[in-house]
This record gives sequence, C-alpha cells and structure tokens, in this order.
Amino acid sequence: MRAKTVGDVGERRLIALIRAAFPARGRNVLLGIGDDAAVIRPGRAPAILTKDLLVENVDFYRSRHPAYYVGRKSLAVNLSDIAAMGGTPLYTLLGLGWPGDLPLLWARNFLRGFRDAAEDSHTELIGGDISRAREIVISVTAIGEARSIVRRGGAKPGDGIFVSGTLGDAALGLALMERGAVLGRSRVRNAVLKAFLDPQPQIGLGRELARGRIASSMIDLSDGLSVDLRHICEESGTGAEIDLQAIPFSAGMRAYGGDRTLDFALHGGEDFQLLFTVPPERAKADLLKAAAGRFALTCIGRIRKDKGVFGIDAAGRRAPIAARGYEHFKA
Amino acid sequence: MRAKTVGDVGERRLIALIRAAFPARGRNVLLGIGDDAAVIRPGRAPAILTKDLLVENVDFYRSRHPAYYVGRKSLAVNLSDIAAMGGTPLYTLLGLGWPGDLPLLWARNFLRGFRDAAEDSHTELIGGDISRAREIVISVTAIGEARSIVRRGGAKPGDGIFVSGTLGDAALGLALMERGAVLGRSRVRNAVLKAFLDPQPQIGLGRELARGRIASSMIDLSDGLSVDLRHICEESGTGAEIDLQAIPFSAGMRAYGGDRTLDFALHGGEDFQLLFTVPPERAKADLLKAAAGRFALTCIGRIRKDKGVFGIDAAGRRAPIAARGYEHFKA
Repeated sequence: MRAKTVGDVGERRLIALIRAAFPARGRNVLLGIGDDAAVIRPGRAPAILTKDLLVENVDFYRSRHPAYYVGRKSLAVNLSDIAAMGGTPLYTLLGLGWPGDLPLLWARNFLRGFRDAAEDSHTELIGGDISRAREIVISVTAIGEARSIVRRGGAKPGDGIFVSGTLGDAALGLALMERGAVLGRSRVRNAVLKAFLDPQPQIGLGRELARGRIASSMIDLSDGLSVDLRHICEESGTGAEIDLQAIPFSAGMRAYGGDRTLDFALHGGEDFQLLFTVPPERAKADLLKAAAGRFALTCIGRIRKDKGVFGIDAAGRRAPIAARGYEHFKA
Repeated sequence: MRAKTVGDVGERRLIALIRAAFPARGRNVLLGIGDDAAVIRPGRAPAILTKDLLVENVDFYRSRHPAYYVGRKSLAVNLSDIAAMGGTPLYTLLGLGWPGDLPLLWARNFLRGFRDAAEDSHTELIGGDISRAREIVISVTAIGEARSIVRRGGAKPGDGIFVSGTLGDAALGLALMERGAVLGRSRVRNAVLKAFLDPQPQIGLGRELARGRIASSMIDLSDGLSVDLRHICEESGTGAEIDLQAIPFSAGMRAYGGDRTLDFALHGGEDFQLLFTVPPERAKADLLKAAAGRFALTCIGRIRKDKGVFGIDAAGRRAPIAARGYEHFKA
C-alpha cells in the first residue's frame, strides 16, 4: 500500500491541518491564520523583520535531514537573524512549496518540528501560503521587536571579537552525516550532528548584549567565521585579527575534527552562534561577565584599523584568512 | 557566446545589484537591506502581514511569462491580500530561489518589474534572502497597516454581493497565451493578456471600503469567484445567490470568451479584483456611490441564510455553483 501524500490530501485539508496545529494564542494577534492576511496590534518598540528561504537539495537533503528537524531548523535560522539584531522574535509566517508526492508523514513531522520550535521560542505562526513545487521550498518570515538593536557596522579598532558556543560543529556534523553517521547512542557525536540538524538561535544572549549596550557590532554565524567576520569588517570599515589558538572547540570537534578542525571552525557555516565585538571599556563590565557566565563566550581576537582578516597561529605567525564560507550559485 | 547567468555573477554581486536597485527611502525604515534583519519604526495602526509564494511551472512559466511581469505580479498578488483587508501596503521582503543557470537578463528584468510595482504602490523593499533552487521560487512578504480592517467572515443574509472590475479575464488571458497569443497591437486582446500577466491590486478601493465601513466582508479574487465566495460564506456561516446575468464582462471576454465565458468568470482565478458584501442599509450610502463612480463596482447577487452557493440564469432557473477554482496539488 502506497503511503498517503500531500497531493492525496489536497490544499484545503493541508491548510486545515496547519491551522489546527497552530492555535491562536497571543492577545496582540488580532487576526491569525485563515484570512487574506494576518493583523497584529502595533508594538511600541521598533519591529524587526527577516526572511530566509530553505530549498531541498541546497539547504537540506530529505534523505538525511529528518523532517522534524527541517521544521525546527527552518524557524531557527530566521530567529537567529533576529537574535543577531538583539531582538525578541514574536511572530512568523510560513510559506510552503511542496511536491504533490511528498509523503503526508513528512509534512506532519515537519509541522511538528516547526511547532515545537515555535513553542520553545514563544513565537506564534500567524499566516502563510502553500503552493506546489517540484522540490520542497520553505520560506519563513520572522517578525520581532527590539528597543535597542546592534548592527553589523559598529565595530571599532581595538574592540575585542567574541563568539558564543563552539565553532565548526555544524559543518563537522554535516561531514559526519555525509559519511553515514546518524543520531544514536554517542552523546558526543549526537551533539555534533545536532549542531547541524537542530541549531539553537541565541536569542537570550543577543537580547542581553543589545540591551546592556555591550556589543558594538553583531552578526550570526550562518556563512562561517571567515565570511561573517568579513561582513562586520566591511560594514565597519575595519580589519580583524583572530588568535587561532583561542577558537573554542567542542568535545565532538576534538574527537572527530582531525586535521580539518581549523577549516571547519573558520569556514564552516550554519553554527548560528553569535559573533560580536566589544569595546575595551565594556569588555570588563559586569554585564559582559554576567552574560559570559551563562552563555559560554570566548574572546577570539581583536578589530584592527588595517583592512583584511588575519589569523595568528601558535608560533605567532600572522597570515591572511581567506573568505571561504558557503556561497550559493558556486558549485 | 553564452549569455551571462546568475551563477556567473554569484550571490554577493546579486545582493549588491538588488541593494542598488532598491535604495532606502522611507524615514520609518531604521535599517533596510544589508544587515541580518530589517528594522522599522512601530506604526500606530495595526500591522497587516501576508506572504505569497510563486513557483515556476506552477504559478508561471518562464517561456510565456516575461520576467518583467513575473516581477510585477509577484508583488501584486501580495498587495492584493492587503487590499482585501482594507489596508495600505508599506514594506516588502523578497525571498528568491534561483537556478544557477538563470540568465542574468531574466534576473534584471524581474527586479525591474518588482521595483516598478513597488514604486507604483509606494512600498519599499526592506530585506530578503537569496538561495539556489532548481526552479525559480519567489517568496514575497508584504507588510501594511490599517486602522479598520474587513474580514472574510462578516457577511449577513440580505447583504449585496459586489465585485470590482470584470471577471474571468485573467483565466481567459492564460487560455489565449496557451494558444500562442502574445502582447501585440490589439488593445482589446492586450487588456485580456495583461489581466493575467500584470494584475492590478485594488488597494485604493479596499481601503475606501474599509475606512467607510461599507463592506461587511471582503476577499480578493485569487482562486476564482466560486471558491472565494465560498470562503466568505463558510467564514460567515451563510450561503449566496449569484445573478449570472449581472456578472460584468470585459470587451475582451465578449470578443474571445465564447462558450467558456461563464466558466472563466465563475471558476477562473487570479483576477485579483475584490469580492465584498454590503449590508442593504449601506448599499445606498453616498460612500458606496462615490466608490462605485471611481472603481467600476457591480452588484452580482445576495447573501442568503441557507448554505450553498447558487446561480440564477436568464430564465430564472436556480442551480448550485460547484467550487472549481484553482487547487494546488490536484493535477
């Protein structure tokens, strides 16, 4: 017996299914799923809006990315953009392009993942659109707010460069999966695979860094350190120097990274940790210390006046770091 | 010599190209294209949010839909949703999934169309995302505002059913294009083709109907009268009766519609005209008359207490109208 597909169910019942999975909650949502558009009460703080597209066989592969985690991740990557501004995410819109022969089970698991991630982040799905497509397309819009925001372009020479968490795990996780690894009993390996499958947007940290006016610039690590740091430098008109010895690695990276460790950390994308800069006078502030206590922050370098991004190795040698993160359109 | 593709140009330069084509303007845009997310000053009126996905070979065909008009239409269908709430569109986000071998000329013409439609509607592109995809995917989010909104579910028995413009032209235009018609010298035929290629969102009308509290329910005709009227009836808990003789047809429909005329009008989607209901006591109000003078409005029937949607023909015979508009996932 053939498994039921979304084509068997049809558009109307799919929308009903989504509507049922995402009951309206927020009192500021005047009109949620089910009309021509959603309507929300205006906030007092500036609104933050972002949108990220996930395409099958580009951003994920159905064969190795369980639908539940595709659902979680498609929300997470958008929330990460809001975290990188220092904002609080509130609402989402979900656009779905689904092949007619997509198993209904895949659709259900995807929606379950998206809903769980929405609950984790206290965000509410308020609308969207569904269409047929040859490959799965997921287009999420996230709406948040923030009283104070942190841009990419505020870094100054002398500012310390900080990252949250550990670097390169998502790229390592993807590499392990490409060699056949799946979620199993090894806690260390699972953590690496989860870094790729189920990244955690750093919303609390981003908000704290913005509210406390600790960070002078901030970006989320989606393309990889070498590319994302360059974004900060370009928008700030500066260069940067990274102490390669200082880059934080996970237990999984130490176990499986081998001689690609530094490559994963510098050029591996999708960690969705925060990369931010802190002026020297604020680096010792109690607020940063408090944040560092809760969020695992590491100073990995310093913003320089001279353009270019450089790494300094254990022997003290200084060499340029090429921008080699993920680039769509280049095979 | 091979024509240049978006893959030749690469992601960075594509984003630079988009950024250059859409300079920031609005003083309420605190941060536009180029950071992790866009930031806008909060409005005083409720915010309206909508999102529509256009997928190649489902919603348009590259071979017969010029890129310029795909650009215009991808914005128009979203603005139409905001019009159907009675709102004023303000901002947009643009998500693009493009094949690497997409000709750069196609991309440029698409962006030109999107920009022209943005200028026509005084909306500003404030952010988005670009990704690789096997087929063209266009995901637009539109953000607007409205002090008073009109929902789908407010129709009452006795309310008159109105439409703007003429019905079925977009479906007729598509049918003519499938038989090889292209934009040319015939003004009448061009108007029909344009109804499909370049629909005009009824923003001014929607806003007037909402502000004047004229319409009790409203929806845009995207799926076709038989389906969209059913949406109003279902959300309102009513039925409806259409005077088939009253349905407004264009000169093009009279010239080319033939024996499919009523089919196009009842079941053809994508007209993006407004379908709305008006309580009897407001049907004679000056506001509606004033609107009717400027927007070509036609009363085509009446909301009934009994469920079901019926048509009454020239001979006075009453027969149910099946819901046969466009349905994704059904081949």
